[in-house]
Amino acid sequence: MSPEGFTITAGELAERFGLVLHGDAARPVAGVGTLAAAGPAQLSFLANSKYRGQLAESRAGVVVVRGADAEGQDRTLLVAPDPYVAYSKIAALFEPVAANEPGIHPTAVVHAEAVVEDGASIGPLVVIGARSRIAAGASIGPGCVIGEDCDVGGGSTLVARVTLVRRVRLGQRVLVHPGAVLGADGFGIALDREGGEPHWIKVPQLGGVRVGDDCEIGANTTIDRGAIEDTVLEHDVRLDNQIQIAHNVRVGAHTAMAGCVAVAGSTTIGRYCMIGGAAGIAGHLEICDRVMVTAMSLVTHSIREPGEYSSGTPLMDSRSWRRNAVRYKQLDALARRLRLPTKGNE
Amino acid sequence: MSPEGFTITAGELAERFGLVLHGDAARPVAGVGTLAAAGPAQLSFLANSKYRGQLAESRAGVVVVRGADAEGQDRTLLVAPDPYVAYSKIAALFEPVAANEPGIHPTAVVHAEAVVEDGASIGPLVVIGARSRIAAGASIGPGCVIGEDCDVGGGSTLVARVTLVRRVRLGQRVLVHPGAVLGADGFGIALDREGGEPHWIKVPQLGGVRVGDDCEIGANTTIDRGAIEDTVLEHDVRLDNQIQIAHNVRVGAHTAMAGCVAVAGSTTIGRYCMIGGAAGIAGHLEICDRVMVTAMSLVTHSIREPGEYSSGTPLMDSRSWRRNAVRYKQLDALARRLRLPTKGNE
Amino acid sequence: MSPEGFTITAGELAERFGLVLHGDAARPVAGVGTLAAAGPAQLSFLANSKYRGQLAESRAGVVVVRGADAEGQDRTLLVAPDPYVAYSKIAALFEPVAANEPGIHPTAVVHAEAVVEDGASIGPLVVIGARSRIAAGASIGPGCVIGEDCDVGGGSTLVARVTLVRRVRLGQRVLVHPGAVLGADGFGIALDREGGEPHWIKVPQLGGVRVGDDCEIGANTTIDRGAIEDTVLEHDVRLDNQIQIAHNVRVGAHTAMAGCVAVAGSTTIGRYCMIGGAAGIAGHLEICDRVMVTAMSLVTHSIREPGEYSSGTPLMDSRSWRRNAVRYKQLDALARRLRLPTKGNE
Repeated sequence: MSPEGFTITAGELAERFGLVLHGDAARPVAGVGTLAAAGPAQLSFLANSKYRGQLAESRAGVVVVRGADAEGQDRTLLVAPDPYVAYSKIAALFEPVAANEPGIHPTAVVHAEAVVEDGASIGPLVVIGARSRIAAGASIGPGCVIGEDCDVGGGSTLVARVTLVRRVRLGQRVLVHPGAVLGADGFGIALDREGGEPHWIKVPQLGGVRVGDDCEIGANTTIDRGAIEDTVLEHDVRLDNQIQIAHNVRVGAHTAMAGCVAVAGSTTIGRYCMIGGAAGIAGHLEICDRVMVTAMSLVTHSIREPGEYSSGTPLMDSRSWRRNAVRYKQLDALARRLRLPTKGNE
Repeated sequence: MSPEGFTITAGELAERFGLVLHGDAARPVAGVGTLAAAGPAQLSFLANSKYRGQLAESRAGVVVVRGADAEGQDRTLLVAPDPYVAYSKIAALFEPVAANEPGIHPTAVVHAEAVVEDGASIGPLVVIGARSRIAAGASIGPGCVIGEDCDVGGGSTLVARVTLVRRVRLGQRVLVHPGAVLGADGFGIALDREGGEPHWIKVPQLGGVRVGDDCEIGANTTIDRGAIEDTVLEHDVRLDNQIQIAHNVRVGAHTAMAGCVAVAGSTTIGRYCMIGGAAGIAGHLEICDRVMVTAMSLVTHSIREPGEYSSGTPLMDSRSWRRNAVRYKQLDALARRLRLPTKGNE
Repeated sequence: MSPEGFTITAGELAERFGLVLHGDAARPVAGVGTLAAAGPAQLSFLANSKYRGQLAESRAGVVVVRGADAEGQDRTLLVAPDPYVAYSKIAALFEPVAANEPGIHPTAVVHAEAVVEDGASIGPLVVIGARSRIAAGASIGPGCVIGEDCDVGGGSTLVARVTLVRRVRLGQRVLVHPGAVLGADGFGIALDREGGEPHWIKVPQLGGVRVGDDCEIGANTTIDRGAIEDTVLEHDVRLDNQIQIAHNVRVGAHTAMAGCVAVAGSTTIGRYCMIGGAAGIAGHLEICDRVMVTAMSLVTHSIREPGEYSSGTPLMDSRSWRRNAVRYKQLDALARRLRLPTKGNE
């Protein structure tokens, strides 16, 4: 799993990443592994002291730990304030990097009015539309389709089969995974009651999508372009797979969302928020900074205080669940019988 | 954001769209914008009288309003019964239209038994399979894959990277966004208990998908083909992104669904329904016309009365939520203690 | 809907599939249909005795039934222990099979270090990366992208526009539908608080994805590769559309999931589980064999007993729902007023 034959010593790792070494500086590391599976030539990490028992049993040659977990250990350790962060940086050394050669693959179809800067890599079977620009150092993987008036910044990577529909501007070092679709029409429809049976007409979607530096966008995630102004992701926003970001949404810097989150139109989300998997956020809301939403919760009103928010009910065996769930329809009757005012204890 | 240099006067707009003009007929409009951002050369709209305060502060050259909101205003206005509808029609004039030239791009791979009518546009790197037909005036964008026995009607557009797997028939003026997959196998499996350990066998999916005129299908939405007969969308159905329509479903005309809705197999949904984001609809149900379902609700039984339906619990701070949610397991005990019959007030 | 002109008699079907024939052995079958729609030349089935009334009215030439439903019927029947299973096998005879010719389409782009075995079929506009292998008898449909170090087993089919990003190994007879993305980066991020404002760094995703024999993976489903070790689907796992399987998840043999399920990272799911549509399963859990989860439930703790599990609330008209839902915030107050201990009846 490591680049062919690459090794580095524990001492070199300590120096490169500013970590404190305990033990054998000369111990070679040729890869990484879990505490349970790593062997003497591999490095592992202990992020949570709760699992300290696994440390004793681990055959890993080197382990990254917190200072408190290093005490009394007679093995080669690298001490870090945040072992998971340190591990991540070390593990990156062992990640095989696909070589994206600069230049335009002969099977790519690049519009005459598109600009591909020297040093950009355009993979096989890519399509690039009019007035789009791919910066030097950007990499457009196989099967991507880039429409009109898009801009991909330096160091950004579209892994494969990504679509930027129209007026999508990516900053630098943005990573977009396969199947993602950015800049499709926002879902704007208006019911036209004049002339014949009422029918929908389309509200033109004249805005674009703007994605800041260092964002990551997961596989099959969709981000629609704005109706009039842009849909915006500020920098360092991290989106997992199959997330839906509707038109006119604005997501603040450093906010992360787990898979399958849905954010409805024109909602603004703050910085450093963490949205749990499959949560929903209704439209036209404002969520302040540092809000956490637990998995599958539905946010139906604006949130003005940092903190963690939830909705939903606990899991039960279905028989118990049916018996209790049917009573949910009587909750108001129950409360009235107990003479609870509508606004009571929460 | 407007096609190069295009302008039109307020008077011309009034005449073209049958609106009542207040003020300066000669005022030129070169684009559209929000009330907050539009300048003197742009048109905006006020759809909701609640935001009438924004009208006074807006620098927009022309504003589309309801009659009641026009009173006492000393500026150029266009009065419409539904300003949002009128705005939508006007804004379409300023939408840059991508030129899809008729003809087959040289990199497209068209089966010898496929029919591409004169005047259809087949983009780069498109694949069209045997016995499929693309009508005159249809546009198949870059990277689309059309399998066998499909039919795309006149004026329909597959934006890019759309897949029509097999036996998919689209009417006229259907718009399909990138990543959508129509006509994949319905999820039909049967547990075979004969011979060895029980294992799944596949139920052949012999039907197709039929999509009526003027439908819109969002990015990464999936519509499976029927097991025996077809999965059907009647005309003017509007689907947002990442919706899942299972096999044998039938969706009535003019029904709209927000992003991430999931409809299970063999359910029939009426006309003019509106299904909120991430709602779920179980299989084998019948939903009548004009039903609204709020976001993230789960429909588990047929609905025979028009109206709005919901399930779920309100959002709380997680500490309060935990305290209350655990009591959900005691709801039946609570109700019994109060001697509420099982079928009580709802 | 049947392959041109193919017919088979009821007697031949009985013999081929080991079924008991009642009636006319010579009756020709040229296709299949529902009980309601099938005509004299078509076969249908009655899986559920509840619908036995439809049998009397059906014009189907041959019907597959249970023994109990055959009694007293004066028509041509095939008796099977499980009519749905028998029907599925018979219907497969009438499924038009797309001819995937062996060989590499001239528009495919195959890396010099990739191995395409003789007898594999590589469709138009496919990309295959370095060190990937496509076994004899595998079929890679139009527009698929296969990255580095992947392996597709014999008899496996990637229908169209499937992406295998990296280190994805598919067993034999695996079927993957369009838009699916296997082997994208797992969603691993760590907040780096050193140097400047806290920002996310990426945790390298060094594992792969392993998919056992006879699995099926739905349209636009995503399965991320593992952080260190592999994400695993054992054999005969059946996934519907738009499912999200996060990194390090392990799904046991014969487990089936309906559309839009989301499984968070590092969770292990047992064998023969059935997960309802749009259900969520939190991360780092263990779910034992033969667990059923109803639609849209959220699993937040490990499950050690087989059985059916649910969460959520019943659907109501929105007016009733609002009245009751607001009381959910008072549930704990209600319970305390009734002096219910926190751990009470469930």
